[in-house]
Amino acid sequence: MGALHDGHFSLIRRAKEIAGHVAVSIFVNPAQFAPLEDLARYPRPIEDDLAALRREGVAMVYLPASEIVYPPGFSTYVEPPAVAAPLEGVLRPGHFRGVCTVVLKLFQTIPAHVAVFGQKDYQQARVIVAMVRDLDVDIEIDVAPTVREPGGLAMSSRNRYLDANQRDVALCLARALTVCNVYFSSGTDDVNILEAAMRYELGVDRPDGVDTVDYAVVVDGQTLLPVTRATAGCVALIAARVGTTRLIDNHILR
Amino acid sequence: MGALHDGHFSLIRRAKEIAGHVAVSIFVNPAQFAPLEDLARYPRPIEDDLAALRREGVAMVYLPASEIVYPPGFSTYVEPPAVAAPLEGVLRPGHFRGVCTVVLKLFQTIPAHVAVFGQKDYQQARVIVAMVRDLDVDIEIDVAPTVREPGGLAMSSRNRYLDANQRDVALCLARALTVCNVYFSSGTDDVNILEAAMRYELGVDRPDGVDTVDYAVVVDGQTLLPVTRATAGCVALIAARVGTTRLIDNHILR
Repeated sequence: MGALHDGHFSLIRRAKEIAGHVAVSIFVNPAQFAPLEDLARYPRPIEDDLAALRREGVAMVYLPASEIVYPPGFSTYVEPPAVAAPLEGVLRPGHFRGVCTVVLKLFQTIPAHVAVFGQKDYQQARVIVAMVRDLDVDIEIDVAPTVREPGGLAMSSRNRYLDANQRDVALCLARALTVCNVYFSSGTDDVNILEAAMRYELGVDRPDGVDTVDYAVVVDGQTLLPVTRATAGCVALIAARVGTTRLIDNHILR
Repeated sequence: MGALHDGHFSLIRRAKEIAGHVAVSIFVNPAQFAPLEDLARYPRPIEDDLAALRREGVAMVYLPASEIVYPPGFSTYVEPPAVAAPLEGVLRPGHFRGVCTVVLKLFQTIPAHVAVFGQKDYQQARVIVAMVRDLDVDIEIDVAPTVREPGGLAMSSRNRYLDANQRDVALCLARALTVCNVYFSSGTDDVNILEAAMRYELGVDRPDGVDTVDYAVVVDGQTLLPVTRATAGCVALIAARVGTTRLIDNHILR
């Protein structure tokens, strides 16, 4: 979706390691935003993005106009796999339908051997992997690690919305995930305790905490369905709002 | 779906004219049958089919097991384009979702340059064309003319269900379409009159008529939406039951 940051550049470098030529797609996809979401204000610094991609030496940038992707009469969508149903699927109805549809179209238009997605959007990566498997799309999905700012905030184009104070508050997402993993690696596998620890770190009731918590959960790493006992490979996932900015982050327990 | 007849062989010959190598897919797709439809009794004369395909000299037959197409956990579907909504979309809910999903999977698995479909399944052909356009699938769709038995009955694997008397009754579908086109080509463009003429020929109230008429309509040839005045390129479509066998047929007005 553009507004490129070091998280994106790490995906490009990963792609260069595993493929001879790298294409980058930039498209702020209206189909994955709900009516009241931030489509209109989503950052689109396209000249900066193109200059950065020139520096990165990518072979191709795919930058379609919205009317090319969704021409008049467009009406076929991908009904996403089961892993799209919980969490973001509940909070952002239609989001993964838009994601799956545009990503399938991308894979038809740019028939790459491998596509690199960021682990920061953990559920999205699981949804894409399941879609590609179910629909027999001939492409390998590579999921690359989250890149973090000093302090731990996961890189995101939406971090641009945060003022200095909000950036400090936003650090508690990564801190909550770290605490969760510390508890887990010291032997606490009760999901209720792990989730309570994360909620405490998010400090929704404190002035220095986040404003709302959409979820802070430990779930199965493949299906994203609830578990009662955490095991290695389960994933801790957080979605929370700081001011009006919605942030997500995750950590695979180990 | 196999149970091959001269309609299928004409598609294979058409494919040979336009492509260097021809692959044939045979798969009775459970996803496009509703619970009370004829999935279980659908004919599967697979040895006869393979022998016929050997005679036709096709390069490849794709004959997947159901568990290969729909493995455990399969849950991604194609939500079909708008043209799937009327007619069969109303009478066979979920049918085109199953068709689109399996055809998209086929196009990913066997990346052909062109795929040949029969005009006998007129709405299906329009649905596939729209899906391929919307999802940017890199394949050309060729729609080949309906092949008819002497007397005019459109070839269909389901004709095997008909006894001798029912085959006589079934002729009235093609006759109704012919009458409709005769009216149209003599200047009658009032859709109510054209549809009434087809219903009369189908003789649902007569002992020698069909048992039920699902629809007998003249609609826009692209969108399949209602029109009040017929023009060349509009299509007459019939679905009717003879005994328990559901038959469909169509004719493009000219």
